[in-house]
Amino acid sequence: MTGLQILPVHGIGDVTAGDDLVALIATAAPWLADGDVLVVTSKIVSKAEGNLVEVPADGPERDAARAAALAAETARVVARRGPTTIVQTHHGFVMAAAGIDASNVDKTHLVLLPTDSDASARRLRAGFRSRGLDVAVIISDTMGRAWRNGLTDVSLGAAGIPPFRDHRGETDPYGNELQITQMAVIDELSAAGELVKGKIDNVPVAVVRGYLNAGGDRRVADDGPGAAPLLRDAESDMFSLGTAEARAAGLRDAAQLADGLRSEVPGRPVHPDAVRRALETVAGHLARATTVTPAETFAANGATAALHLRTRDATPAGLMRLGADAHRLRAALAAESVASVALPHDDGIRLDLSGAHA
Amino acid sequence: MTGLQILPVHGIGDVTAGDDLVALIATAAPWLADGDVLVVTSKIVSKAEGNLVEVPADGPERDAARAAALAAETARVVARRGPTTIVQTHHGFVMAAAGIDASNVDKTHLVLLPTDSDASARRLRAGFRSRGLDVAVIISDTMGRAWRNGLTDVSLGAAGIPPFRDHRGETDPYGNELQITQMAVIDELSAAGELVKGKIDNVPVAVVRGYLNAGGDRRVADDGPGAAPLLRDAESDMFSLGTAEARAAGLRDAAQLADGLRSEVPGRPVHPDAVRRALETVAGHLARATTVTPAETFAANGATAALHLRTRDATPAGLMRLGADAHRLRAALAAESVASVALPHDDGIRLDLSGAHA
Repeated sequence: MTGLQILPVHGIGDVTAGDDLVALIATAAPWLADGDVLVVTSKIVSKAEGNLVEVPADGPERDAARAAALAAETARVVARRGPTTIVQTHHGFVMAAAGIDASNVDKTHLVLLPTDSDASARRLRAGFRSRGLDVAVIISDTMGRAWRNGLTDVSLGAAGIPPFRDHRGETDPYGNELQITQMAVIDELSAAGELVKGKIDNVPVAVVRGYLNAGGDRRVADDGPGAAPLLRDAESDMFSLGTAEARAAGLRDAAQLADGLRSEVPGRPVHPDAVRRALETVAGHLARATTVTPAETFAANGATAALHLRTRDATPAGLMRLGADAHRLRAALAAESVASVALPHDDGIRLDLSGAHA
Repeated sequence: MTGLQILPVHGIGDVTAGDDLVALIATAAPWLADGDVLVVTSKIVSKAEGNLVEVPADGPERDAARAAALAAETARVVARRGPTTIVQTHHGFVMAAAGIDASNVDKTHLVLLPTDSDASARRLRAGFRSRGLDVAVIISDTMGRAWRNGLTDVSLGAAGIPPFRDHRGETDPYGNELQITQMAVIDELSAAGELVKGKIDNVPVAVVRGYLNAGGDRRVADDGPGAAPLLRDAESDMFSLGTAEARAAGLRDAAQLADGLRSEVPGRPVHPDAVRRALETVAGHLARATTVTPAETFAANGATAALHLRTRDATPAGLMRLGADAHRLRAALAAESVASVALPHDDGIRLDLSGAHA
């Protein structure tokens, strides 16, 4: 019945710029021991490092100053809804309001995230080592999540502990190779620490005892890679934009579908299902006078290589409708990753198609 | 220096359909005490409840059976990329592969999530109570997240513990009312439990001691609301669809922009910036012969109420281009939440505009 202990550190008191956090924590927790993991709330790190901005205590000036601080911390806006703005910060974190916080600080300041939480964790760890204590340090903050209500604490920075426990290559008692690979243990340790912290009762540090000593791959040489490996870059993230924002981006993509020259179409074969789905998308949305017929097929897979749109209404209004319908169909094809160019042709418009990269 | 203990329950061994989980856990952990929180891996709940599907051990038949199981568990597809499919299950969880798992089970079965994890948690809790033990039960599973690499354990079901710790209405020592409201404590307890469990060494249950007894709002009358309040419905979720899927939905929206009658436009004033941004979106993407001019303004705010598109190229090809350009501009306006209808008008197309709901 070994296990872990999660211990609160009471009595740290108010932290201000220039405070020696290591001394404050070591004094409040004289029972700290080698192998302990300290989970330190980012706010006291920011306050000790003086990473605050001055703001008016109230009024529209406060709102403006707060908006300016948010803009300064923002690398890109991920999603907005009502008063909520979720951004990716310059550090790489995706957080509401860039993690800027007005709680547990006087009304004329906002607390920013630490400039470099991994570096802060390393400095704290070195400070404890100089006092003869070999501990790991995690800097944590509270974040919201997609899909689930409620907030949890996760890790912004770390030193002396591997961010992941990696199960790749392990097999279970049935001989199955494990699918689940990397557990984000420093996020789980941050969550565990939050359970003994208080938001308003000055418990900004928790200690996890028994984790690093449990053997296996729980130690790193030197400080390790920190919490940086937890950050997923936008490119490899399936949720890099809010749904409404991505939908608007799709509408803008449609607005910018270029007319073009035939030579621009690389001519990759199109999956037959893609054309079928695009035609289903526009079914019922084209003018009654508009007809769409396959004009050509790819030799290789027999899929449609070009579509021909014609109208039975040769008036100026009918021709303009046909132009709009061709653009509708091009947007529907783009939704299926089918590129197209529109070429005036005979009595209508010819769309030359090209499939996505394999 | 009070705090929490996170204790592993060793020796539960293999679990099969019909097993009495309460008896297995109570025998393996005779040290269980009133006020303990049991974090039970969902897999042993599913196995005890017989919630498995039979599949071929290998080959394309296995892949097909696995795809059929995924389809059966899926309420809607959230995002796909390569071999990864993230879905919302019928239970409401957003998870890769609907949480279906092939590890820690023989090769001819897949393990589904428990049918109703809150009900399972209540049954387990009642089982312990009938043995004279007053504990809370959390059923946990491993999930991925948006924006952050690595997996963490979260809660699928719960009984005897409030899902949130709610800080609304509290004020900090500086007199600020707390912004952060609901901490998802049962998810944090699940994460804490994972730290002492093993994926392959048969530790499917962890016990958190000291949490429920810490006073405050940590008890519920009866079983409480379970883990269901953690589920965010798609409607109120800013990330209900993957970015690529939402972008494709935007393209399909563009494909389905209806032509319409003037009477369909409710005529809500348009924000002037919205029209400006839409015109910027299409700038450089319209035919050189196309011109766009404001045709009318709203009396109320002076914003554009209608736009007029004309072409200097009155050939059939020119008129078709004008039709496509009008549709481009309509898609760009839709991206700014401006509705429009297109009406043939004089020598061109008139777009009547209507703003979004306030």
